[in-house]
Amino acid sequence: MNRSMIIYVLGTVLKLTGIFLFIPVICSLIYHEQEGLPFFVTGLCSVGLGTLATLHKPENTVFFLREGCIATALSWILLSIVGAVPFFLTGEIPSFLDALFETVSGFTTTGASILPDVEAMSKTALLWRSFTHWIGGMGVLVFLLAIIPMTGGGTINLMRAESPGPSVGKLVPKIRYTARILYGIYMVLTVSMLIILIISGMPVFDSICTSLGTAGTGGFGVKSDSVASYSGILQWIVTIFMILFGINFNGYYLLLQKEWKKALSMEEIRAYLLIIVSATAIITVNVADRFSSIGDALTAAAFQVGSIITTTGFSTVDFDKWPDLSRGILVLLMFIGACAGSTGGGIKVSRILFLFKNTRHQIFAYLHPKSVRPIKMDGHTSDNETIMGIQSFFAAYLLIFVCSIFPLLACGSDLITSFTAVAATINNIGPGLGAVGPMNNFADLNCISKIVLIFDMLAGRLELFPLLVLFSPAIWNEFKK
Amino acid sequence: MNRSMIIYVLGTVLKLTGIFLFIPVICSLIYHEQEGLPFFVTGLCSVGLGTLATLHKPENTVFFLREGCIATALSWILLSIVGAVPFFLTGEIPSFLDALFETVSGFTTTGASILPDVEAMSKTALLWRSFTHWIGGMGVLVFLLAIIPMTGGGTINLMRAESPGPSVGKLVPKIRYTARILYGIYMVLTVSMLIILIISGMPVFDSICTSLGTAGTGGFGVKSDSVASYSGILQWIVTIFMILFGINFNGYYLLLQKEWKKALSMEEIRAYLLIIVSATAIITVNVADRFSSIGDALTAAAFQVGSIITTTGFSTVDFDKWPDLSRGILVLLMFIGACAGSTGGGIKVSRILFLFKNTRHQIFAYLHPKSVRPIKMDGHTSDNETIMGIQSFFAAYLLIFVCSIFPLLACGSDLITSFTAVAATINNIGPGLGAVGPMNNFADLNCISKIVLIFDMLAGRLELFPLLVLFSPAIWNEFKK
Repeated sequence: MNRSMIIYVLGTVLKLTGIFLFIPVICSLIYHEQEGLPFFVTGLCSVGLGTLATLHKPENTVFFLREGCIATALSWILLSIVGAVPFFLTGEIPSFLDALFETVSGFTTTGASILPDVEAMSKTALLWRSFTHWIGGMGVLVFLLAIIPMTGGGTINLMRAESPGPSVGKLVPKIRYTARILYGIYMVLTVSMLIILIISGMPVFDSICTSLGTAGTGGFGVKSDSVASYSGILQWIVTIFMILFGINFNGYYLLLQKEWKKALSMEEIRAYLLIIVSATAIITVNVADRFSSIGDALTAAAFQVGSIITTTGFSTVDFDKWPDLSRGILVLLMFIGACAGSTGGGIKVSRILFLFKNTRHQIFAYLHPKSVRPIKMDGHTSDNETIMGIQSFFAAYLLIFVCSIFPLLACGSDLITSFTAVAATINNIGPGLGAVGPMNNFADLNCISKIVLIFDMLAGRLELFPLLVLFSPAIWNEFKK
Repeated sequence: MNRSMIIYVLGTVLKLTGIFLFIPVICSLIYHEQEGLPFFVTGLCSVGLGTLATLHKPENTVFFLREGCIATALSWILLSIVGAVPFFLTGEIPSFLDALFETVSGFTTTGASILPDVEAMSKTALLWRSFTHWIGGMGVLVFLLAIIPMTGGGTINLMRAESPGPSVGKLVPKIRYTARILYGIYMVLTVSMLIILIISGMPVFDSICTSLGTAGTGGFGVKSDSVASYSGILQWIVTIFMILFGINFNGYYLLLQKEWKKALSMEEIRAYLLIIVSATAIITVNVADRFSSIGDALTAAAFQVGSIITTTGFSTVDFDKWPDLSRGILVLLMFIGACAGSTGGGIKVSRILFLFKNTRHQIFAYLHPKSVRPIKMDGHTSDNETIMGIQSFFAAYLLIFVCSIFPLLACGSDLITSFTAVAATINNIGPGLGAVGPMNNFADLNCISKIVLIFDMLAGRLELFPLLVLFSPAIWNEFKK
């Protein structure tokens, strides 16, 4: 186990977090808010500690998958704790557990909130909340790989542990340039959205926060009613960008390479768009009688479908009051999630596609037990490691899911609330149904429930195994060596 | 494709079904009920048709897995249709779809009923209902293998397609003797239960039907309130036998062989008993304040836990009114199900154990990517085929589950009803929650919902793939050849 390299990565993450914390400080200067000071102090301490930890660059920089997992999981825990401190210091969130919940919800791009009144918060805190989404969306370690030269083999293992999807590939041979391309596309899309929102009439501060929250598919807004009070045009802009950020970024890279055909024929993207269109159509018909026109119904349906499947979690209406067919479809979308290689969460469309293909494959195997017909995705044969990885993901996902529901039930939440609270956090969505529905929040849950959901948010964002590895006694024995 | 052999098997099943139909005829003679006539006529036609189909024994008796699957799936469909005819002819169930639902529910040992008033039925019909459970529990093809000499290779494929569990093995080298041993144990347990019930004061007719329903882990009773009106002693007898019928029959075979140690150390049986004890303990505490004594609470909790985990579906109380923690645990037990190689349904404890082992195994693989540490069950290494089979089972299970919920939602059922109706039928349990709770029935669902649930019951009993194979166009192309 390469301990010194793990500490070096953690130190670098601390330094980076500190620098990120200066961004809300700038905001506080602009708006003359005194909440900037705690952010500044926390940032300074974080940079200081990080610098201490990285004074000596380790000689052995080789990094295996296990180091990648541990470094990633610990980085995210560290990031969340440091990010929660200023919320607590400013007194805006008086309980540290609540502050941690809010920060984990931010970084994991969940968007589940414990704030009873968002509009009472300082602009400084609101910007930090939304900015955590942006960092968490593409990943702090991917950012680190993009800007800091990390020599030595195996840094792809950091990216593999942090990036969503069943098989993480490099776009270009050098991992550093892959990370830069990803952040480049991410930045361009975010800025485009920001400009379009401002031009279409959204206030600048709202536009910044909404863009950051949409880009990371997070869902924290600056208003208690989320996006409901903005105009129909603005809602459609958010809808379209949510869907765009849920697309596999490899598709955008292919577009940049002018490989139009290849990009448009990606099976995952086609399935993703097909699901969105079908779900929107069914829900529109199902809720049409609740709106004054079919256009309004379509606007609301498309927004909610886009928000849930991409796991953003913005809302414009209280969809918990919709008919059970629509609610059922939205719960299903919670699980499907966005494309792999996007900033969205959930199980991912590619894994769902794999489920279908695997079943067809197994039926074929019953008919012709001796013939070998591989499972293909985009024309490539899936290797055994990927298949086993996907199947193990489902196994672990089911286990964590079920084991998370019971503490909530035991603490007194009802079936629908418990089930959808876990679904909304492990899939990094935000709102569920019942007591954690779009017009409620997570504040009233007790400590144990909140700790379970914090675990689920982190497990969901890191796609289970990097976090589960921390619970293996074997790894701590090796760590001591 | 060996078509003539499939037809031969179907013909034999028809003959057998006809003979089974004579058993309620005997009952009708004893109780002087005129409902015996339709049963007699249907039985006679069935035997006649079956004899015609089996006049010529095929020369090529070789049977592969695909023939096994097709023969099994078609046998079960045929069995259900023939078994439904007398219900319809006597006029006791006026709609043929309802009669089919009730019969499929019987043979698949689900126990979900469309009857508004069980006590209004003739004893003849009630006995047939309970008898279908007994036949379906161990399997009609296993029965056929036990009594009819089937020469030729590959008859194990019939058993493999019909018997529950991830890996079906022979107890003894000859498949015929394996089938006989299984039915022998089954018969001895059923008769023991019958005698104990009669001695303990249950009326003889009730005892027969309850024993048949418990043995098959079915759940059809002879009273509208299921088992609620019997004494506490009788309820405990039923509880214990339900749990006994949910145990892997290989365990009983080991006991017969005096291999006590091996039987008691079977991981699946230990996990199964541990789950029952824990669930009962938690529910007892959770519902204690609703009963006059802790003993009554324990009696009710143990009964419901035993009934749901073995997928029998008897009930003594309206557990849909219990707190959400208890309801949540019962819903979880619906999915876990009984042991493989028992008459119970559900996912099966061994597959759940495998989920846990696989996750631990995958975490280990993250730490030591190059080392090979196999997944073991009872000390034996699981082969790749079994692992892939289990994982594919989960994939197909999830797909069928999700695809079944939406037609019910679209037909107007609420979320809890739709979810638990599908859970209760695909896992062959019987009652769900909400509109299909223990004190309600499935009568009010519309045609489409009933057809979906009939499919789910058959898919659950045959463990998905044998039934799914019928939907593959490839197989029909081969069938034409």
